[in-house]
Amino acid sequence: MRYALGIEYDGTGFLGWQRLPHGRTVQSEVEAALSFVAGEPLEVVCAGRTDSGVHAQCQVVHFDTAAQRSERGWTLGMNSRLPPEIATRWCRPVSDDFHARFGAIARTYRYRILNRPLRPALQRDYVAFERRPLDADAMHAAAQALIGEHDFSAFRTVHCQAPHARRDMQAIRVWRDGDEVLMEIRANAFLHHMVRNIMGSLLPIGRGERPVGWMAELLAGRDRALAGPTAPASGLTFLGPRYPQRFELPDEVSA
Amino acid sequence: MRYALGIEYDGTGFLGWQRLPHGRTVQSEVEAALSFVAGEPLEVVCAGRTDSGVHAQCQVVHFDTAAQRSERGWTLGMNSRLPPEIATRWCRPVSDDFHARFGAIARTYRYRILNRPLRPALQRDYVAFERRPLDADAMHAAAQALIGEHDFSAFRTVHCQAPHARRDMQAIRVWRDGDEVLMEIRANAFLHHMVRNIMGSLLPIGRGERPVGWMAELLAGRDRALAGPTAPASGLTFLGPRYPQRFELPDEVSA
Repeated sequence: MRYALGIEYDGTGFLGWQRLPHGRTVQSEVEAALSFVAGEPLEVVCAGRTDSGVHAQCQVVHFDTAAQRSERGWTLGMNSRLPPEIATRWCRPVSDDFHARFGAIARTYRYRILNRPLRPALQRDYVAFERRPLDADAMHAAAQALIGEHDFSAFRTVHCQAPHARRDMQAIRVWRDGDEVLMEIRANAFLHHMVRNIMGSLLPIGRGERPVGWMAELLAGRDRALAGPTAPASGLTFLGPRYPQRFELPDEVSA
Repeated sequence: MRYALGIEYDGTGFLGWQRLPHGRTVQSEVEAALSFVAGEPLEVVCAGRTDSGVHAQCQVVHFDTAAQRSERGWTLGMNSRLPPEIATRWCRPVSDDFHARFGAIARTYRYRILNRPLRPALQRDYVAFERRPLDADAMHAAAQALIGEHDFSAFRTVHCQAPHARRDMQAIRVWRDGDEVLMEIRANAFLHHMVRNIMGSLLPIGRGERPVGWMAELLAGRDRALAGPTAPASGLTFLGPRYPQRFELPDEVSA
């Protein structure tokens, strides 16, 4: 039987999602808890591999097992084994053609910036900090140049292993809420560091150091070396993927 | 010269505000950083002594010193010395009759409850967790019985050292925002554990175990033993005090 599992985590203390021979990762913790509940060694496939320090509101994984447990059995069992920084949100049986990674038709991230003169104490693990005033409207206008299908080489780390850089950018919104500037960004899929590199180039525009048209220039140039630096991991949260309705997953991950 | 200082902190790793002979407290850290910047040993007086695990968005303290520093000198100097869980927000010279504790005419707290079937990972240090569904409207209605000047003995811990239990409750609002239930509560001053004890009695009302009228009964009975248990510290944040406008403090703490 194949199951889909929704997982929330605080990435602060982890070396990212993906299992590593040494070091604490979210995948290792999830697989250890899941294997304990199932009573057999299990591996999971995720919708979006997050970097070190990046959070997830609803990561989705799938796994195959002969073990029979109720939804409550999986979720409560796992939550009692997982460390406080990781929690399951739900678990559903799915058809065998469900695939957490290849089946996702969209992925959404949120980036939070605390924009005030002095550094934060509260929420410090969930925001990036920028002391210079940001023009959120200019950042929003600049970001609209990325909408549509493009080659996103300009915003791709050299370590990215994807076979090509074409992605379909579906929506980007940047706005101010009090002393925070937020970005929500949705695409069919993202390249390695793509969200943080996009934010790293929107920041100079927000500070007025670059014109609104710079984003379109960078995109067209396809040269990572010309774009801004990678924005900090702490501000980034993977809100979650979306799957076709026929898989009957919870609303938060259903298209 | 007397100064007022606005301070934000994440109370998770502290034994509360007040300096203790042993153990890490916010006051000790603030005084150590302040004394370093001033170049002389300094002590502070605060608006609201928070318990272990309770947070503050804008605690206010005052201190007296002969040291001359600009607002930037105090705030940036302190923030470079303070641990990541504590940050200054502003610093202002004030007249000698300003007193952070006795001069405050109101204090506001916020209590956040994550209300869903499964425990949180994100924001877990900033919320309390309640798995049973809460009726925020019933909690709000019940809480209105506390408005006005009353003897709050029913919601006062036995360790409370205040000379009397009369307080003027100015406003309470309880509402739902998605899977969170929030309370904001403002009074001239609070007794020890008062906000957490009020929430501890609103919770059974929210769960439908007690009628809306229970809050008025408890208040009138003045018997702590009849009220609900003390709600967890993690959900509580001291938003800050208010002072008369003549002290010309930042808007967030000015009446």
